[in-house]
Amino acid sequence: MNVKACAEYLKKNDNFLIVSHKNPDGDTMGSCAALCSALRRIGKNAFLYPNAQVIKKLVPYVEKFYAPNEFVPAVGVAVDVATDKMFAQGFDGKVQLCIDHHPTNSRYAKKLLLKPKKASCGEIILELIKALCGELTKEEADLLYIAVSTDTGCFMYANTSAATLKAAAKLYEYGASAAMLNQIFFRKKSAARLKLEGMIFSGMNFYRDGKICVVKITKDMLMKAGATNDDLDDIAGLAGMAEKSLVNVTIRELDDGSSKVSLRSGKEVNSSEICAVFGGGGHNMAAGCTISCLPDKAENMILDVINEVWK
Amino acid sequence: MNVKACAEYLKKNDNFLIVSHKNPDGDTMGSCAALCSALRRIGKNAFLYPNAQVIKKLVPYVEKFYAPNEFVPAVGVAVDVATDKMFAQGFDGKVQLCIDHHPTNSRYAKKLLLKPKKASCGEIILELIKALCGELTKEEADLLYIAVSTDTGCFMYANTSAATLKAAAKLYEYGASAAMLNQIFFRKKSAARLKLEGMIFSGMNFYRDGKICVVKITKDMLMKAGATNDDLDDIAGLAGMAEKSLVNVTIRELDDGSSKVSLRSGKEVNSSEICAVFGGGGHNMAAGCTISCLPDKAENMILDVINEVWK
Repeated sequence: MNVKACAEYLKKNDNFLIVSHKNPDGDTMGSCAALCSALRRIGKNAFLYPNAQVIKKLVPYVEKFYAPNEFVPAVGVAVDVATDKMFAQGFDGKVQLCIDHHPTNSRYAKKLLLKPKKASCGEIILELIKALCGELTKEEADLLYIAVSTDTGCFMYANTSAATLKAAAKLYEYGASAAMLNQIFFRKKSAARLKLEGMIFSGMNFYRDGKICVVKITKDMLMKAGATNDDLDDIAGLAGMAEKSLVNVTIRELDDGSSKVSLRSGKEVNSSEICAVFGGGGHNMAAGCTISCLPDKAENMILDVINEVWK
Repeated sequence: MNVKACAEYLKKNDNFLIVSHKNPDGDTMGSCAALCSALRRIGKNAFLYPNAQVIKKLVPYVEKFYAPNEFVPAVGVAVDVATDKMFAQGFDGKVQLCIDHHPTNSRYAKKLLLKPKKASCGEIILELIKALCGELTKEEADLLYIAVSTDTGCFMYANTSAATLKAAAKLYEYGASAAMLNQIFFRKKSAARLKLEGMIFSGMNFYRDGKICVVKITKDMLMKAGATNDDLDDIAGLAGMAEKSLVNVTIRELDDGSSKVSLRSGKEVNSSEICAVFGGGGHNMAAGCTISCLPDKAENMILDVINEVWK
């Protein structure tokens, strides 16, 4: 399905429930809310499925679109949801249309608008709203700016392309308050997050001449920093900031005293292979596992395996 | 002077020495080097005045363009240099042409290509190279990507505009290795810098319900972190990352035991007015001064003045 056909389908139908993915990020929520706003502008009934896991910063932008209990949808639309196992917690409705950018989309919906080269789903929704309404409102531009910028780390990640930057330029032209949104989503951090990062940066362990960086986050550190789940966004990315580090290990102590390990690597080692030793899995360059011991011991165990496979 | 007239002037002349500003950043160095490369491509003799203060990360991109001792220039070109007091350390030649984006440019050069709405000088050089050569080389695209991205904090700062993003999109299309450059200039940090940030984030002081954030950097902290000048880039920006902070104070202990204060504020207080009390100055939203005492005492003195003017 292309953008034009998707717009025609939306114009022909009504009473839409728009569904985001679980562990929602700015792309799924911003894209869902912008599409919802545009559908309402062409006279449709449209609501978001309320996603209970949305981080605090995003709530004010999306909750006004949430469906009331009594809403009976006719058409389910999934946005940025790669498989039917990834629907927002508690969603058990049907989805007729899926709009997505994940190359791994499992094609669970009858109608699919898939653009796997796009860095964010927000870029697809931008084209779709132009097809539906001609122009974007300032609110839609803000929502899609949140989508595009958060999925690309404010245009810093390797998924950013010339097309991404051109889409962002259009959102500026439609009035997106980009400077303010950048402050909220990238620049400003809670005092608790800053304290936690302080402890993390002070306590980084380096091995193999700095090529391995290990970050440990204990319950004690979280308590001392006063950090909650809202303060842990993208925390597994911090180990990768160390200049020489090629293999990045983040170990987080869980409530039951076990250790959740996130491993990220270049081509030097296969992250998924290493995590499989402990019953975990993932991709070659990003994988995870849980080990039933405290972080210090988990660090030694994971280092042993890394040193074994990486000669 | 517009871009076309500037290109004509460059085509008519030869033997260029291109001068950057002191305390050089990515914009002045990337813009100078890209212009130098383009001038060589149209058959000119062109070199950069060697800037001794360039940070380590930038050196490999620019030093190949540095003028040898025996080079006798005919035309001096200043790029991104707002006043003739801002020339790179040791430069005592003449400048016929200035290419700049600072609204405060003091018009010290006979010929001036000034575009004060541009976020970076790199965007002006992009247009100029297109006028000179038609296309950009991959190397020039890399150099200008460094210029544009570093002057906008990777498109995060408020100076970023739709035009900035469109210029960056063009640089992607000319082959800039943006993902790699983002790693080097934004994502990766030296182990010393990470240790120092760890100490800074752990030791931030908050006043007035978090609206004032004070960061102190002592000689002892620098020593413990193993940090050198190369690790202090944009360090005065860290205080501003605290979520609620409106007035941001960074105090750095100097070799002689005095304290260098950087103050950044919104409209709540006038930074320049506060620093003037201690013989310093600057702008309403960013100013500085030096106080002849250790950081702890300087903190109290500056807080007293802030509390006096900000009721």
